[in-house]
Amino acid sequence: MKYCAECGGTVEHRIPEGDHLPRFICPSCHTIHYQNPRVITGCLPIWQDKVLMCKRAIEPRYGYWTLPAGFLEIGETVAQGAARETMEEARARVEVRQLFSFINVTYIGQIYTLYLAELLDLDFGPGPESLEVELMSEDQIPWDNLAFPTVKLSLQDYFSDRKTGQYRLHTHDLTTPPWRPGKSKG
Amino acid sequence: MKYCAECGGTVEHRIPEGDHLPRFICPSCHTIHYQNPRVITGCLPIWQDKVLMCKRAIEPRYGYWTLPAGFLEIGETVAQGAARETMEEARARVEVRQLFSFINVTYIGQIYTLYLAELLDLDFGPGPESLEVELMSEDQIPWDNLAFPTVKLSLQDYFSDRKTGQYRLHTHDLTTPPWRPGKSKG
Ligand SMILES: [Zn+2]
Ligand SMILES: [Zn+2]
Repeated sequence: MKYCAECGGTVEHRIPEGDHLPRFICPSCHTIHYQNPRVITGCLPIWQDKVLMCKRAIEPRYGYWTLPAGFLEIGETVAQGAARETMEEARARVEVRQLFSFINVTYIGQIYTLYLAELLDLDFGPGPESLEVELMSEDQIPWDNLAFPTVKLSLQDYFSDRKTGQYRLHTHDLTTPPWRPGKSKG
Repeated sequence: MKYCAECGGTVEHRIPEGDHLPRFICPSCHTIHYQNPRVITGCLPIWQDKVLMCKRAIEPRYGYWTLPAGFLEIGETVAQGAARETMEEARARVEVRQLFSFINVTYIGQIYTLYLAELLDLDFGPGPESLEVELMSEDQIPWDNLAFPTVKLSLQDYFSDRKTGQYRLHTHDLTTPPWRPGKSKG
């Protein structure tokens, strides 16, 4: 941030009086521009013993496999956002069930939320952000080619809970990046 | 938002190609300025049969009672933010336990998260955003003078679960504002 979104003046980056973190502050109109973490919401769509995975058609992690998820929008609930992203990325209709993953990704200022969801029919396919969409059983999951650690953790938790039939909320804290730059799949 | 935070140019408000919602777009540097919901995090601090409540010293809802909570910051987990807000608003040390409330407040683009927390000692008191801080048993809660519906729902859920000894995650969707303007307590 270089300019004030309200008046166009040049902002400063300093700790406001009575605060404890540096903020972007406009010396002209005195607006403090707070920046806060963003929420990712998505589904783990289930059909019998399989889950619906998407191969990414966009960076970051082009060509790697993920679960349908994206940024929560203003005006929707987290569960509504999860269903919307599943429709956008996998063209799939789901019944959203329980909140399953709640993962703090502090190094990029994100909270990753994932719902268990029931796939309602087999009429799915890649949206503009996906190359392929595929139903996979546990032994078909490409564990070495998953897009994000949030996806890997959620799938591990799911297949682990599945063995017991007891599905609970799983919380994780990811505080350091999992891979080095330059490893994106061409 | 009127000006581009990156180049200072005047922004437009329209739906970008391939998107479905209007965004603030800069015609000069082509930055799309997304706006996303913000996360509120807080604690329900427990001491024996009492919970720690704060009387607000700031607007909105000056003079009404609340639980210690505030905006999640980049770089912290939701549980860390809950403990920080409890220290800031109630000068109280807590051991954060389980996620208890998860409330979509869609009409203001917020997600309210609240943790059950164990108050570690009785050395607490009002921070700069509180007028008073008080331990209250269920029959002392000022039900008609609570600051926000999220606080009321969380307290109701807590005292209800307390009767059974089974504490679970409670999800609610608040999609319309609960009160008319101009009712703030002077
Ligand atoms: Zn300004
Ligand atoms: Zn610009």
